[in-house]
Amino acid sequence: KINPDRLWDSLMEMAKIGPGVAGGNNRQTLTDEDAEGRALFRKWCEDAGCTMGLDQMGNMFARREGTDPDALPVYVGSHLDTQPTGGKYDGVLGVLAGLEIVRTLNDLGVKTKHPIVVTNFTNEEGTRYAPAMLSSGVFAGIHTQDWAYARVDAQGKSFGDELKRIGWRGEEETGARKMHAFFELHIEQGPILEAEEKQIGVVTHGQGLSWTQVTVTGKDSHTGSTPMPMRRNAGLGMARILEKVDEIAWSHKPHAVGAAGHIDVYPNSRNVIPGKVVFTVDFRSPDLSVIEDMEKRLREEGQKIADDMELGIEFEKVGGFDPVAFDEDCVSAVRDAAERLGYSHMNLISGAGHDACWINRVAPTAMVMCPCVDGLSHNEAEEISKEWAQAGTDVLLHAVVETAGV
Amino acid sequence: KINPDRLWDSLMEMAKIGPGVAGGNNRQTLTDEDAEGRALFRKWCEDAGCTMGLDQMGNMFARREGTDPDALPVYVGSHLDTQPTGGKYDGVLGVLAGLEIVRTLNDLGVKTKHPIVVTNFTNEEGTRYAPAMLSSGVFAGIHTQDWAYARVDAQGKSFGDELKRIGWRGEEETGARKMHAFFELHIEQGPILEAEEKQIGVVTHGQGLSWTQVTVTGKDSHTGSTPMPMRRNAGLGMARILEKVDEIAWSHKPHAVGAAGHIDVYPNSRNVIPGKVVFTVDFRSPDLSVIEDMEKRLREEGQKIADDMELGIEFEKVGGFDPVAFDEDCVSAVRDAAERLGYSHMNLISGAGHDACWINRVAPTAMVMCPCVDGLSHNEAEEISKEWAQAGTDVLLHAVVETAGV
Ligand SMILES: NC(=O)NCCC(=O)O
Ligand SMILES: NC(=O)NCCC(=O)O
Repeated sequence: KINPDRLWDSLMEMAKIGPGVAGGNNRQTLTDEDAEGRALFRKWCEDAGCTMGLDQMGNMFARREGTDPDALPVYVGSHLDTQPTGGKYDGVLGVLAGLEIVRTLNDLGVKTKHPIVVTNFTNEEGTRYAPAMLSSGVFAGIHTQDWAYARVDAQGKSFGDELKRIGWRGEEETGARKMHAFFELHIEQGPILEAEEKQIGVVTHGQGLSWTQVTVTGKDSHTGSTPMPMRRNAGLGMARILEKVDEIAWSHKPHAVGAAGHIDVYPNSRNVIPGKVVFTVDFRSPDLSVIEDMEKRLREEGQKIADDMELGIEFEKVGGFDPVAFDEDCVSAVRDAAERLGYSHMNLISGAGHDACWINRVAPTAMVMCPCVDGLSHNEAEEISKEWAQAGTDVLLHAVVETAGV
Repeated sequence: KINPDRLWDSLMEMAKIGPGVAGGNNRQTLTDEDAEGRALFRKWCEDAGCTMGLDQMGNMFARREGTDPDALPVYVGSHLDTQPTGGKYDGVLGVLAGLEIVRTLNDLGVKTKHPIVVTNFTNEEGTRYAPAMLSSGVFAGIHTQDWAYARVDAQGKSFGDELKRIGWRGEEETGARKMHAFFELHIEQGPILEAEEKQIGVVTHGQGLSWTQVTVTGKDSHTGSTPMPMRRNAGLGMARILEKVDEIAWSHKPHAVGAAGHIDVYPNSRNVIPGKVVFTVDFRSPDLSVIEDMEKRLREEGQKIADDMELGIEFEKVGGFDPVAFDEDCVSAVRDAAERLGYSHMNLISGAGHDACWINRVAPTAMVMCPCVDGLSHNEAEEISKEWAQAGTDVLLHAVVETAGV
């Protein structure tokens, strides 16, 4: 079993970097805070005897040698970047649990056959640079690296330039590594485990996602002196489309979800009718045909709303992945570990996207989940207990060691 | 008659300061660009033989002496600040037309009995600091100066500090000056004069306005893993209220208008359900009871929407003025001038708010309007013809000189 106090101390230490305004974190990808968090993680890994690899996407790979020089490593990890108003555990737990496994194996003097590599993937959150899970996506061959480098943030700064600026662009070709298996521990970010009073979620599937950026164009004009019939109000167009997004998601009960988290209004002045609104609609479902239907209806109904209001409208797909089924052997390794350790468990479908969803395309992969309070995440108030972190990391340890062989 | 080429050249010269991105201007109040525009205006006024006064709100008063030492001045002017994506004429025409009157009287060697004071009021637009017409409002005793100084912009910078920073906080007590009369020339910012093919709008009334800032609070949470029934989506609440705002405005045909130009979504991340949205609803009508009804319904219906969705909601009135009737003698002076000069004219109700609406409380006031292309304003593409500017300024000249006496 792992050392829960040491794990917890590391979580709290990392949370000091890029503190939020309400007890959580703002350590967004490729910021100075991200660089500082990476440096701390590297130091911890080196102190634990690992050697650090770094690829051209800034993905970090801390390697603990195995006994068989020809064996492919077992990878374990997640991401250290956070939402702008994010929690202390989303992603971070998965990386530091990987480190805790290494530290525990060191304590016990256990050598595994396959090397173990603790991984931090760059830009999982996707807030600063869409899409989410960008760098695990490049690793898995989903996106080209050139395309990823050219992504720009709201200030027009490119991913490639910012990665270089913070000093974490490596030499190693992205995706060149081969993995024996990949395991990711993550907080559930949903309410099911807590409601069912289970300590461990054995993640069998991940739901798929579609992000559509919608640009509605009207005409900037004066809110006072423009008669109602002459208005072309892009803000009102956005409002009608948001109502439709909600309706579309509810029409696919019980699993589908839909909302817009990102909305920018131009010129955003109290006495100017919005001439342009840009917003991103996030639809998800475990069923690919449902996602496709929702996206299609958004485009059709959105076009209709815009036409009726004499507004312009454009749709751009800025993120998407299909629902995934994780590797049966890896999933069994997780379930067996929970069983063996006596932790209560249940099967889960992940509601969020994870680096594991992309890595599953190139290596046998599975995920472990632990509960979080009220299912709350992407919120500074995100909370877990030390016991939940411990159970999740114990299961991760056993699944990893089982797969890596002793 | 005035010199239209000189007026036009000055308009184009001023438009070089704080250029926009699409041919218009971004010379928002209390920015460095505002300071630069003010300095140019002061230079022009001093070159025309005026002495410049400056009050504690940064309102500028360029005085051309009259022949009667005891006579109160006739004031003429508007504002030099612009919207973030504003036009070259909104406000600026009224100030530079005042300057053109002085230059014309100088050319003709005409002395008026009453002095003439060309005025630039600070922060008419209200984008950076709500409410609009802030400094004419303090001048007229509507707001206290302390309250005005404490207004903050989106970056948290206060009006008082920024006014000092740009070097345009004067010594003179705001509102201490007494006016014989006040005249303001402004572009219509609406479509009526152009549609009716009239050169001059004789503004008899101004419609009133109510700005209500609405804060809807939900709960930030993950767009993927938060089940639909558990969501408290402040963005969807905002959308439903915007639809209601539109419905409320249309229910008071033909004159009332309503929209939200300002909408800020928090944390504004693609995969976070908005936990907070702050937006400002702008309702207007020439009829006070209609404005009051619209505001009341916004609060009632908004509360109902929020309650149904288990969202929090708060309403704050951040701007408002009652409909105004301008001074009959001043209005007649404008109409008579148009008549005498042979310009086609009609009565108008101003759809926008103007400094004249506040000054009307403390001095006999009237407004002259000239058409603008497609009624478009608060848009960089705002356009007028030199002939329209000339006609408006000719009428302004005659109304002012008539009132100031020769
Ligand atoms: N786990 C997580 O929050 N990932 C971000 C990508 C997503 O929006 O699902
Ligand atoms: N004229 C003008 O655009 N003034 C700004 C105040 C308002 O919104 O009416």
